[in-house]
Amino acid sequence: MAGNSFGNIFKLTTFGESHGTAIGGIIDGCPAGLFLDFEAINAEMQRRKPGQSSIVTQRKEEDEVTFLSGIFEGKTTGAPIGFTIANEDHKSKDYGHLENVYRPSHADFTYQKKYGIRDYRGGGRSSARETACRVVAGAIAKQLLPEIRINAFVSSVGTIFVEKPYQQLDFSLIENNPVRCPDKETAHKMEALIRETRKNGDTVGGTITCVVQNVPIGMGNPVFDKLHAQLGKAMLSINAVKGFEYGSGFCGSQMKGSGHNDIFNTDGTTKTNLSGGIQGGISNGMDIYFRVAFKPVATLIQKQQTIDNQGNEVEMEGKGRHDPCVVPRAVPIVEAMAALVMADFYLLNQTSTFTSSSQKTVSKE
Amino acid sequence: MAGNSFGNIFKLTTFGESHGTAIGGIIDGCPAGLFLDFEAINAEMQRRKPGQSSIVTQRKEEDEVTFLSGIFEGKTTGAPIGFTIANEDHKSKDYGHLENVYRPSHADFTYQKKYGIRDYRGGGRSSARETACRVVAGAIAKQLLPEIRINAFVSSVGTIFVEKPYQQLDFSLIENNPVRCPDKETAHKMEALIRETRKNGDTVGGTITCVVQNVPIGMGNPVFDKLHAQLGKAMLSINAVKGFEYGSGFCGSQMKGSGHNDIFNTDGTTKTNLSGGIQGGISNGMDIYFRVAFKPVATLIQKQQTIDNQGNEVEMEGKGRHDPCVVPRAVPIVEAMAALVMADFYLLNQTSTFTSSSQKTVSKE
Amino acid sequence: MAGNSFGNIFKLTTFGESHGTAIGGIIDGCPAGLFLDFEAINAEMQRRKPGQSSIVTQRKEEDEVTFLSGIFEGKTTGAPIGFTIANEDHKSKDYGHLENVYRPSHADFTYQKKYGIRDYRGGGRSSARETACRVVAGAIAKQLLPEIRINAFVSSVGTIFVEKPYQQLDFSLIENNPVRCPDKETAHKMEALIRETRKNGDTVGGTITCVVQNVPIGMGNPVFDKLHAQLGKAMLSINAVKGFEYGSGFCGSQMKGSGHNDIFNTDGTTKTNLSGGIQGGISNGMDIYFRVAFKPVATLIQKQQTIDNQGNEVEMEGKGRHDPCVVPRAVPIVEAMAALVMADFYLLNQTSTFTSSSQKTVSKE
Amino acid sequence: MAGNSFGNIFKLTTFGESHGTAIGGIIDGCPAGLFLDFEAINAEMQRRKPGQSSIVTQRKEEDEVTFLSGIFEGKTTGAPIGFTIANEDHKSKDYGHLENVYRPSHADFTYQKKYGIRDYRGGGRSSARETACRVVAGAIAKQLLPEIRINAFVSSVGTIFVEKPYQQLDFSLIENNPVRCPDKETAHKMEALIRETRKNGDTVGGTITCVVQNVPIGMGNPVFDKLHAQLGKAMLSINAVKGFEYGSGFCGSQMKGSGHNDIFNTDGTTKTNLSGGIQGGISNGMDIYFRVAFKPVATLIQKQQTIDNQGNEVEMEGKGRHDPCVVPRAVPIVEAMAALVMADFYLLNQTSTFTSSSQKTVSKE
Repeated sequence: MAGNSFGNIFKLTTFGESHGTAIGGIIDGCPAGLFLDFEAINAEMQRRKPGQSSIVTQRKEEDEVTFLSGIFEGKTTGAPIGFTIANEDHKSKDYGHLENVYRPSHADFTYQKKYGIRDYRGGGRSSARETACRVVAGAIAKQLLPEIRINAFVSSVGTIFVEKPYQQLDFSLIENNPVRCPDKETAHKMEALIRETRKNGDTVGGTITCVVQNVPIGMGNPVFDKLHAQLGKAMLSINAVKGFEYGSGFCGSQMKGSGHNDIFNTDGTTKTNLSGGIQGGISNGMDIYFRVAFKPVATLIQKQQTIDNQGNEVEMEGKGRHDPCVVPRAVPIVEAMAALVMADFYLLNQTSTFTSSSQKTVSKE
Repeated sequence: MAGNSFGNIFKLTTFGESHGTAIGGIIDGCPAGLFLDFEAINAEMQRRKPGQSSIVTQRKEEDEVTFLSGIFEGKTTGAPIGFTIANEDHKSKDYGHLENVYRPSHADFTYQKKYGIRDYRGGGRSSARETACRVVAGAIAKQLLPEIRINAFVSSVGTIFVEKPYQQLDFSLIENNPVRCPDKETAHKMEALIRETRKNGDTVGGTITCVVQNVPIGMGNPVFDKLHAQLGKAMLSINAVKGFEYGSGFCGSQMKGSGHNDIFNTDGTTKTNLSGGIQGGISNGMDIYFRVAFKPVATLIQKQQTIDNQGNEVEMEGKGRHDPCVVPRAVPIVEAMAALVMADFYLLNQTSTFTSSSQKTVSKE
Repeated sequence: MAGNSFGNIFKLTTFGESHGTAIGGIIDGCPAGLFLDFEAINAEMQRRKPGQSSIVTQRKEEDEVTFLSGIFEGKTTGAPIGFTIANEDHKSKDYGHLENVYRPSHADFTYQKKYGIRDYRGGGRSSARETACRVVAGAIAKQLLPEIRINAFVSSVGTIFVEKPYQQLDFSLIENNPVRCPDKETAHKMEALIRETRKNGDTVGGTITCVVQNVPIGMGNPVFDKLHAQLGKAMLSINAVKGFEYGSGFCGSQMKGSGHNDIFNTDGTTKTNLSGGIQGGISNGMDIYFRVAFKPVATLIQKQQTIDNQGNEVEMEGKGRHDPCVVPRAVPIVEAMAALVMADFYLLNQTSTFTSSSQKTVSKE
Repeated sequence: MAGNSFGNIFKLTTFGESHGTAIGGIIDGCPAGLFLDFEAINAEMQRRKPGQSSIVTQRKEEDEVTFLSGIFEGKTTGAPIGFTIANEDHKSKDYGHLENVYRPSHADFTYQKKYGIRDYRGGGRSSARETACRVVAGAIAKQLLPEIRINAFVSSVGTIFVEKPYQQLDFSLIENNPVRCPDKETAHKMEALIRETRKNGDTVGGTITCVVQNVPIGMGNPVFDKLHAQLGKAMLSINAVKGFEYGSGFCGSQMKGSGHNDIFNTDGTTKTNLSGGIQGGISNGMDIYFRVAFKPVATLIQKQQTIDNQGNEVEMEGKGRHDPCVVPRAVPIVEAMAALVMADFYLLNQTSTFTSSSQKTVSKE
């Protein structure tokens, strides 16, 4: 209700501000008996953490996750998985200048007005640092669904776009460059743009495309909880996201039905996939793909006009080490949120059809 | 969980297939003491119903809502509001030809695979007819929030766009033409395109822009339940929707931070509003605006190749009276879903700050 | 949230006041593919309905349920099951005398104070008439779990108790007498007490014992959602219920551990069953049994002192046809609520352990 | 869903096993702006912790809570409150003998069967240690509702009962003796019984009575979420609880309506209070009182017959330092759970009636 939980059966609840002792969360509803690959979890954390390359923020944070419960002898037990991630690099002194100032296009003003109080150190709860917890849970969700392959990549930075359809890209190349774009040439251009933008103390937006493959037919729900509605909510809940489209998306709104309908092959697959792998809110077994728009980061390393909490005009300038472009680091977050949605629907789908109960669980040995 | 409920405190649950006796729903959590304007509810139903103009489906349905509970002497009582809408115009004989056929880009295939059974008459549960129930609940939600003004309009049909920003449009003109576009000249072009498309037995997509004004500061939640994430889910849950963007949206992803940040005025309003009235997931008092993309309707009045449930290729042709373009009738649905989101957050926001409880509710008279 | 829904996956939401046009509900989350036995549903409705015997209220209501959705060719489709039950016998004129009066030990006063308004006709939403909807949903839940046998019976009326343990009773005799007590001799005494009580214009309380047999091991959850906690909530939500105990119950609180522990047989069953079939909130395969206490009905056919909504003392006398003892008619309600709890946990339990997803649902045929 | 969360708006989610590094939880939905009294929280923890007196377990645990988020400069911020409590005194070597054994009347067997795995060290997730997290959240809930007074006390141990009605007891004496019974003479007898029981390596059950005073009228919901149903669920979710009754309880089931009805005074209070402060599921402003039955602790310091996970008969004997009687330490847990229920309904009640929204939150300053 208060906005810090995601999912129904596979459910993540998170806590933590950017400059407290630690952030963390609880994963409830993870089935028992899953051997966890902790290296895989750590690898995802490394993809998200600050300081990993020269085009992202130079803050150093190790982002090591400590699991406190729900795991015994390497396996999930069905009990809730509690975890924390220490905030190593507080330096709260950096943030004294923000106490009374509302930064433009940040959440300072709205948090203060809504709650009458805010933890002004580095964005507090509105800091993107909370996404580290999403990556932890997403990494576990991925392990729950080993057949489903989720690949996200940067498909644009500013006005530089990957022009090829995703089918022509080699996802194994995504991690080969710091910008996380599998098209080498475009990646170079994006990287150059980000460097130039940073030099100017400015920031730039971009988009991420995510492709979910080998999805079982039948995931998602009718009416209000359509698979793409849940995916859309998941993506829009990530900091800085301004838009979501799946399948033909906004382009599809310009088309005629005769050109848009996906004609079936006799095996139930479709010749085209403008539907984006989802019909009526339910997966049809084709690739699910969607695109997520990120605005440019609001913290600039240049002077901006703004106001303080008394309504006085003040001038401010971002300090510290911020991302000139958020999208490279957002790639694992998009994947994590997609994995959470899929895991939740996967589990829920176990309950959608009737099987005589005697066959399933009456066992007294 | 099963996808037929929306909202947390102000909660709508719906039921019903297109060709059963009736559809309906329950609105739970509507505060007591609200005088209902039944004419206003009916007016919204009229905006959505089939057969209202020459450019929409010619099916005749009165879509009269019958309230069964939760209202006493014209006022809500705090009890759940149950309602039904009769399906007057079943004609189920029309649908025998669909029993074994999977229509392209419909939900026939996915429902059959997920549930092992489907009500094939006119789309069953996947029919857009269920949106009538959303309009009922949305009309009540609007009355709960009389200060908040919600206006949606058609901003594109196919490749014909309204070129003006919404601030230059007069929302009082929206209902002046059947296409629900407040820009008269563009509306004529859209209407012509829809007529031509219908003549060809084809369909065409479009977009709807929605503007929510006079919103209290503080609506929405941090992290997972951001106001725009909930709005996005609400819109993506409407049949045929393929994309959602708010504020600067996908365009924003091409911008620099220095051009994107909304600079404050001293009263806390902002000089620009690329944020779309929401910062950190919480309303800031500026206009909220967003855009929703609809694909072209999948039912064509022309021959299409498809398959039956045995995997045989068959040829089919849409019968009956279908919409050549869904967006004009979707305008009240977009508004209804926006109203549901706002009403739910409005109520939830009553609980976000502490007031000594003695001042609020201890009363023994 | 507002109190009109029960369950998580198998979820019932109800609406309706005693003197509106109809009451009804929506069952969401019932798995697809279940052939419904409508006669069995009707039989449960007959057990609950007024006027069925000479010791219950003489109101005549047919309580016929009309299903509006979610069922196709006799089978559930996975879509929400909407239903209504007409209120045939309103006679609202009977209730004018209650408009300004607060009846003792009814909900008139609390509803008025909470909501500022109430539907005073026959109790409105607080009427036990809403339990008819529970019986509909419970009857379907029973069919979902054919192996699980749920039998409730009247174990006391006033101070007349069934002295035998339930293992010595023949549940097939429960319906042989109007009081629903399988012990013939005790049933006669109970019936005589109820008749005598009615003659005096008075009412009398009682208890119901419920036994749930052949339950799969593993139903229920740790910590907050223990199986008996959910059962307890379910029972306490029934009108007039004042207490709940399971297994050894309140007697168990007087015992020593050495006498209370259930010693295992080598097959995992236990020699005694003071645990009541539940250990740590999870079913262990032994019989689940519990006891529910009902207060005497508050409506008396005799003069009582009370107040009106202006705080004036007034005298009132119950009119109409009321139950002198509620427990015989509450037997099917107790069973229905038990069935709802079991069905919900049964479905949820499908998600509690990990199975490689490939084995379960990846099917593209 | 998976059973580790409690509440709707004021929501506690917990994690942790008895012998992991730490247990903890997240409190979501606590309103912003509440100054926390940390000493009061600690005082509640001291009441629950092991080793506090000579009649409870002699385990030494400090049970110090560390708050990680949601609090800034001593006040709640509206962000989720994350907290941990270290498990200082693991000594997991003590538990090796339990690896393959199912202890009688513990959750070993059911957890193993449900999840296929269990953390056998000291009960794992089924350990009553998790109730420490409830006490943390309950202590905060109490501070949210300063007017509401919640007092629980031990009303019986074995067959020794407090004979006086609660109105004749002085709640300020509850903490004066280790058994937490405000009736001095009875307390001595109870204490003697507990000591004697421990000497025999045995355990004994008991009951706790809880009285909630100065409750606003209108808390609770109709139908499924009645105030007493939520309280009942809360209590039944505490380890070892076997029964719950409120107001007249099981005794009420033996009464006549003419003796049971609570007659109104002209100010809306009632002359008697057999209703227990709740009518129709909603508080009426009178004292709420209820009684909770606890079974004797299952761990005995004497030899018992049991089985191992291969179905072999084995003999076992409880080791370590266990409570001979759980009720003295359960008193603060009962209060904590009552506080959680009241806080949640208190917040929810802010949304139950309509007030023109303009008056409440439209503020742009």
